[in-house]
Amino acid sequence: MADQRFFDNTGALTLDRIAEIAGARVLRDSGQRTLTDLASLDAAGPDQLSYCESVKFKGALERTRAAAVLVAEPLASFVPVTCTTLVCAKPAVGFAKVAHAFYPNPGCLWPLAKPPVHSIAPSARVGEGAVIGPNVFIGEDVEIGRDCEIAPGAVIGRGVQIGHNAKIGPHVTISHALIGDRFTIHSGSSIGQDGYGYIAGPGGHFKIPQLGRVIIQDDVEIGSNAAIARGTLTDTVIGEGTKIDNLVQIGHNTRIGRRCIIVAQVGFSGSVTVEDGVVFGGQVGIADHLTIGKGAYIAGKAGVTHTLEGGRIYGGFPAKPVEQWRREVGVLSRLAKGKRNKDERDGGKD
Amino acid sequence: MADQRFFDNTGALTLDRIAEIAGARVLRDSGQRTLTDLASLDAAGPDQLSYCESVKFKGALERTRAAAVLVAEPLASFVPVTCTTLVCAKPAVGFAKVAHAFYPNPGCLWPLAKPPVHSIAPSARVGEGAVIGPNVFIGEDVEIGRDCEIAPGAVIGRGVQIGHNAKIGPHVTISHALIGDRFTIHSGSSIGQDGYGYIAGPGGHFKIPQLGRVIIQDDVEIGSNAAIARGTLTDTVIGEGTKIDNLVQIGHNTRIGRRCIIVAQVGFSGSVTVEDGVVFGGQVGIADHLTIGKGAYIAGKAGVTHTLEGGRIYGGFPAKPVEQWRREVGVLSRLAKGKRNKDERDGGKD
Amino acid sequence: MADQRFFDNTGALTLDRIAEIAGARVLRDSGQRTLTDLASLDAAGPDQLSYCESVKFKGALERTRAAAVLVAEPLASFVPVTCTTLVCAKPAVGFAKVAHAFYPNPGCLWPLAKPPVHSIAPSARVGEGAVIGPNVFIGEDVEIGRDCEIAPGAVIGRGVQIGHNAKIGPHVTISHALIGDRFTIHSGSSIGQDGYGYIAGPGGHFKIPQLGRVIIQDDVEIGSNAAIARGTLTDTVIGEGTKIDNLVQIGHNTRIGRRCIIVAQVGFSGSVTVEDGVVFGGQVGIADHLTIGKGAYIAGKAGVTHTLEGGRIYGGFPAKPVEQWRREVGVLSRLAKGKRNKDERDGGKD
Repeated sequence: MADQRFFDNTGALTLDRIAEIAGARVLRDSGQRTLTDLASLDAAGPDQLSYCESVKFKGALERTRAAAVLVAEPLASFVPVTCTTLVCAKPAVGFAKVAHAFYPNPGCLWPLAKPPVHSIAPSARVGEGAVIGPNVFIGEDVEIGRDCEIAPGAVIGRGVQIGHNAKIGPHVTISHALIGDRFTIHSGSSIGQDGYGYIAGPGGHFKIPQLGRVIIQDDVEIGSNAAIARGTLTDTVIGEGTKIDNLVQIGHNTRIGRRCIIVAQVGFSGSVTVEDGVVFGGQVGIADHLTIGKGAYIAGKAGVTHTLEGGRIYGGFPAKPVEQWRREVGVLSRLAKGKRNKDERDGGKD
Repeated sequence: MADQRFFDNTGALTLDRIAEIAGARVLRDSGQRTLTDLASLDAAGPDQLSYCESVKFKGALERTRAAAVLVAEPLASFVPVTCTTLVCAKPAVGFAKVAHAFYPNPGCLWPLAKPPVHSIAPSARVGEGAVIGPNVFIGEDVEIGRDCEIAPGAVIGRGVQIGHNAKIGPHVTISHALIGDRFTIHSGSSIGQDGYGYIAGPGGHFKIPQLGRVIIQDDVEIGSNAAIARGTLTDTVIGEGTKIDNLVQIGHNTRIGRRCIIVAQVGFSGSVTVEDGVVFGGQVGIADHLTIGKGAYIAGKAGVTHTLEGGRIYGGFPAKPVEQWRREVGVLSRLAKGKRNKDERDGGKD
Repeated sequence: MADQRFFDNTGALTLDRIAEIAGARVLRDSGQRTLTDLASLDAAGPDQLSYCESVKFKGALERTRAAAVLVAEPLASFVPVTCTTLVCAKPAVGFAKVAHAFYPNPGCLWPLAKPPVHSIAPSARVGEGAVIGPNVFIGEDVEIGRDCEIAPGAVIGRGVQIGHNAKIGPHVTISHALIGDRFTIHSGSSIGQDGYGYIAGPGGHFKIPQLGRVIIQDDVEIGSNAAIARGTLTDTVIGEGTKIDNLVQIGHNTRIGRRCIIVAQVGFSGSVTVEDGVVFGGQVGIADHLTIGKGAYIAGKAGVTHTLEGGRIYGGFPAKPVEQWRREVGVLSRLAKGKRNKDERDGGKD
């Protein structure tokens, strides 16, 4: 199903191997011994795997032409008789694991057949197995781990350290940063540039030197065209397993916890503290020096102006518990409709 | 009027040729046979063309020193006697067409006098008439049409197809994409990077492979530093003639219709469907899996949380029909002012 | 305190020299003759300088192990006896000046030990003392002043003029621009691309040629991944001493005054006029053709839909004087809580 111009399929997998990868058991075997690919329920063909996560998609499941399908046990009865039933607790996770097996390296688009044109400082150390594209710049004393891919035009400034298995996209700029293993960053993002710090004075805005760093722990992924400023006197920190979408802004000295989800165009001011497992919807803004408690969920486009305790859902601007925000939206809507009705009765205008 | 360091004026045009290009007729001829340039009403000099779109600018029209002016018929009586009157139905369109004629190639800033330093894979096919800047990377099996300009540092990943007459700006990254004719994209934008898809689990956020593509139809323009993610199992699609401004985010699997207008910093979540001719003001956000109907108009900074039917104007957060939003804004303002007045009468405080 | 992999400390400074740089006088001398570095109150060690700006940090001041501390006179009594007391009117400004003295060139990460691989047009003039990274492109007739740093991959289009002491970050694109002295711009920003101007018509959106420029006066700083479009018939202007954060959008023909502060992700439509000394919080949006008066302060995430007079604080969407916005937020909150209480009394549902 994946476009072969962009993705390399590694070849057929046996049904037993697929079940093993997905953590599934074969509930009913329709006889197909090997599968060559995977697809959604409606697109999958007779040698392909699909999955069904929810009873919402029961109709598509009943009509699928897939050779095999991953389902949770309660949905097994809806699988067509021509289709092998693979039962597992989390079909979407299982499907994603099999997708990784069919397409183990979907991002490696920059292989090199000839010596690259790039600038690597003599004092830089790059681990074994690195693939480095043309026009890459790697500064003095940089250390990069094993099996990293560095796409064309990436710029890595002096002294940066990056762990093993990093994937650095085209035109990424990284400076003033210490980064863990399995880091992925997409095209055009900037890490480690000056934080935005000035002191107002009669002679204009006086720049505060930004002398900190960006610390990125293991298993972080960052999208395209995001910007993460380095700290002023302390560091900007991104915790282990946190995932950051496109065009996100993270101000200086902000500390993001582990396993947070930060959707596109979110903006953090400086010196924000985010505890573990917080979810930010798209375009959320967070004022400076606030704390967001563990496991909080901030709905898209909210504006956070106060510290928020963990474990709750917030929305609106200023952000508040979501049930209160919904009541406010409802009350205001009814007031405005009441006014319209009164105007119409009166034949009046405002 | 245009700065000659940046723009190449192709030389004088006759009045008849200008009328033909603009689709105008000469209502009153003041005798000037050729024009060399164009400018706004107040800046235009005695061998230049100007235009007047609205009676709002009647004063400037009466004072203009332009050699000729494009106006709609009702404004013709305000044109000074020293100035040739060119009447056409849409003066701004006519003026823009003449501007294209005086400055046919305003973006070609990267000509090459010597062989470039770039990396083009042997299997890539680039059509005739291409201008390719230094430090460009073009991957394997890329196909690019005739008469394309590819600015310094652009990176085009394996298998990408681009039609004729494309203009690719500096530091643009394109991967996993099939693109039509007359495509323009400005500096620093990213097309085709991974969509933002994870499954939460006890071991952290598990990445869903992003195996789709970005399909961009003919006559699309994209600004600077925008990000368009490729699809997951399906494609992200941008319809024919749609224009996208700077710093816009388009999530995976989103399908944008034809001739839409998407102003700066708009953000689409994943799997949004936008029908034809929709207009999005700046900083609008759209939640996932919604549909925006044909010809809808979404005012700037709105937050769209529900599917919206076509042909209407919406605003606010959550987005609603604009007349309702205005009533809500007015009702709340009056309530707050009433409270202030009451506080002042009571001498009280809240 | 600064990480020596990223920052070059120029060596020890005498106490007298530090007092002179900071504009401070020695109120009580603990005997330490030279200092080698600086840090925050809690991190500073026995040969380092610190500062205290506010009585809020009195506790940290009383506990500091710094060799010397900059304070305003009223806080001098809280300085430990082991610590030299330096009194000055604005301790944060003094501290920043000393930080510049210890780390005079924190951004110079791209020195070159060997000839660079870059493309500089023969007609381009680059002043003395320039440091130009690899893969830089400089177009025809470009003029760049003395002592500029141009990082790897920067692209500067034909005819651009830049003054003395500029710092151009990696992957910056600049075209159609005239720029003053002491300009700093961070990685990935785009200056001078086409403005977003179209005329709607039956045959689609017709592009208006963008024939203006971007004019940037002295002492401007711009963050990462920002986008500033050039003008249509006039110019886009950024006034002297204005500081712009990451991911900011500035539309065509917008004129920003002197010494403005524009925090991350702010978006200006086209043809906005901003007078001097205006402050914009993060994610503010400004509709087109408005004027923002001198010294106005717009709180974060506000949506400006009308012209605003100077000298006042505004917030909310639509933006209004902040005291009115706060009353509206309070009134709505009380109405919604009243409704909840009534529902609970009635045992009712809405």
